[in-house]
Amino acid sequence: MPTVNAYAAQNATTPLAPFQIERRDLRPDDVQIEILFSGVCHSDIHQARSEWGPGLYPMVPGHEIVGRVTAVGGQVQGFKPGDLAGVGVLIDSCQDCPSCAEGLEQYCENGHTTTYNSRERDSGNLTFGGYSSSIVVREEFVLRVPESLDLKAVAPLLCAGITMYSPLRHWKIGPGHRVAIVGLGGLGHMGIKLAAALGAEVTLFTTSQSKADDAVRLGAHHVIISSDPEAMKAARASFDFILSTVPTSHDLAPYLKTLKLGGQLVIVGAIDPVGVHGGLLISHRRSVSGSNIGGLAETQEMLDFCAEHGIVADIELIDMQDINAAYDRMVRNDVKYRFVIDMASLGREAAAD
Amino acid sequence: MPTVNAYAAQNATTPLAPFQIERRDLRPDDVQIEILFSGVCHSDIHQARSEWGPGLYPMVPGHEIVGRVTAVGGQVQGFKPGDLAGVGVLIDSCQDCPSCAEGLEQYCENGHTTTYNSRERDSGNLTFGGYSSSIVVREEFVLRVPESLDLKAVAPLLCAGITMYSPLRHWKIGPGHRVAIVGLGGLGHMGIKLAAALGAEVTLFTTSQSKADDAVRLGAHHVIISSDPEAMKAARASFDFILSTVPTSHDLAPYLKTLKLGGQLVIVGAIDPVGVHGGLLISHRRSVSGSNIGGLAETQEMLDFCAEHGIVADIELIDMQDINAAYDRMVRNDVKYRFVIDMASLGREAAAD
Ligand SMILES: [Zn+2]
Ligand SMILES: [Zn+2]
Ligand SMILES: [Zn+2]
Ligand SMILES: [Zn+2]
Repeated sequence: MPTVNAYAAQNATTPLAPFQIERRDLRPDDVQIEILFSGVCHSDIHQARSEWGPGLYPMVPGHEIVGRVTAVGGQVQGFKPGDLAGVGVLIDSCQDCPSCAEGLEQYCENGHTTTYNSRERDSGNLTFGGYSSSIVVREEFVLRVPESLDLKAVAPLLCAGITMYSPLRHWKIGPGHRVAIVGLGGLGHMGIKLAAALGAEVTLFTTSQSKADDAVRLGAHHVIISSDPEAMKAARASFDFILSTVPTSHDLAPYLKTLKLGGQLVIVGAIDPVGVHGGLLISHRRSVSGSNIGGLAETQEMLDFCAEHGIVADIELIDMQDINAAYDRMVRNDVKYRFVIDMASLGREAAAD
Repeated sequence: MPTVNAYAAQNATTPLAPFQIERRDLRPDDVQIEILFSGVCHSDIHQARSEWGPGLYPMVPGHEIVGRVTAVGGQVQGFKPGDLAGVGVLIDSCQDCPSCAEGLEQYCENGHTTTYNSRERDSGNLTFGGYSSSIVVREEFVLRVPESLDLKAVAPLLCAGITMYSPLRHWKIGPGHRVAIVGLGGLGHMGIKLAAALGAEVTLFTTSQSKADDAVRLGAHHVIISSDPEAMKAARASFDFILSTVPTSHDLAPYLKTLKLGGQLVIVGAIDPVGVHGGLLISHRRSVSGSNIGGLAETQEMLDFCAEHGIVADIELIDMQDINAAYDRMVRNDVKYRFVIDMASLGREAAAD
């Protein structure tokens, strides 16, 4: 089994540090990818620090992966060495249940396998993510990456992008819809770009006046400062659809009031209790739903949609060695809007050793 | 203006007592109805006691009204003296907004007028409900009541029935759907009957083992005792649709876990905060929605559906003079499943005076 360079957390409290992992030998349906860029998702921090339950260590985070195919198994049809390839949050699922049959691998009834902090279905070996120089993934879970886009800025599409795209598509958002995005971070900035590209009229809810100009640059038509009671009152019953990217427990009441009759609020980040007042749902037949990343077919559709519309993430490129500082900045919300690791930096370190 | 006998609350704390009210002179589009039966809804208690904010007194509750037309205005086309007629929760709305145009008067953007504890749109006079010998309502808000049904047991269809029917129809419940009803009371027992008649496979969630047999008699195919952790676990991810009739703040988590991928939980009773864990929505793209009674066209459809399927409420008939004792029993949940007032009893009292 090939040994490759990576960065790993050895437990919940120590910084990430260089580590060597083994990647499996190629199976007939496997694709081996040299990782060029790896996006840094807030869930990387949550998992590395065991904030969502005990993590599996050593942990190599990273589930926004863009790279080039270096080898393929004998049965692989869709990829050949030299092709661009992407890997997102999922690397396997049962491929047999009704959810998988529908292309909803993220809702696999037998439990999907995540790119890291998980175990391979057959071997039980730990899975290791994108903070590494290469990865081996079965073909069904490898995405085709359009050559036309800025590769380093494509990486965040694999998690942040699809997490926003899937609910927008599932609830059929398009021209004529008034859509609001709550929060301007890695998810929110993709939500603005994608909703606008789908033809919706887009509003950003933010607590920060300083983000207003940037939101307009990203494609928002309006910005509402959610701490301004007058502005919130003026927005009552005006939106068809709200996507809340807030990652923590929060009260949905102020946002629910801005939904029209039959309006839909979708949360993608908050796994804890969210405040929902029954009266606000009943009075306008409003709904609150959740959505989890997207399936493989939908992720491919999203990448193709982004190529067609020239959409990528706004990123700050860092070296692998900067990851712990980057985590600190992310915790302070100090990034516009996604860190992406230039994985060539990992090779330079290995060479210097 | 004709003076008619009624029972009214004079404030939030004293019992209901005999009272005389004035009904308006017939306008060209008005229907005058002699009230035969008036259902007793839990919201009558909430409003009479100002539990949902300050009530408008004197208050004559009652919004499940069945009676016979005694006179009509010159422009009324759909009713003539001697016809059966029903009145529910609404007696007016703007008739002009998009919601009203869609037949969703319960979501009128300019505010609907309720049968009691409200004010007439034009005169500003208090509205008085069904605990009275007659009522005058504009034709658009009068329902046709099928002659084939047991009239006293029809009354609760006008609120409890339509409150269950509307979400079942809006979310297109029918054969092949697994539906659960939470709570067996006035609403829940209608939910079981209606969901079963629509062809769904129906389960009752109840905390009370004693209600299990009755639920089956009413049409439920299964009963789950919600305080039994094993039974709740066995029901995980098994329902397409859950209707929660619980009237107070409650934690939805145990029920959300029993919803399938894409499943829908609808609350109709709880106007206070309900407990919603984001993770339970996200993991299975579940939704929580609210629903408020139903529009006039849908209420008529429900009455016709009930006539076709021989559906009425299970009721206990009382005299008007028993109303305060009935309220006490309702607060203790001691009624199967709806009190209905025989309004002839009010006439007997008046005669005895
Ligand atoms: Zn992510
Ligand atoms: Zn599966
Ligand atoms: Zn009612
Ligand atoms: Zn209206």
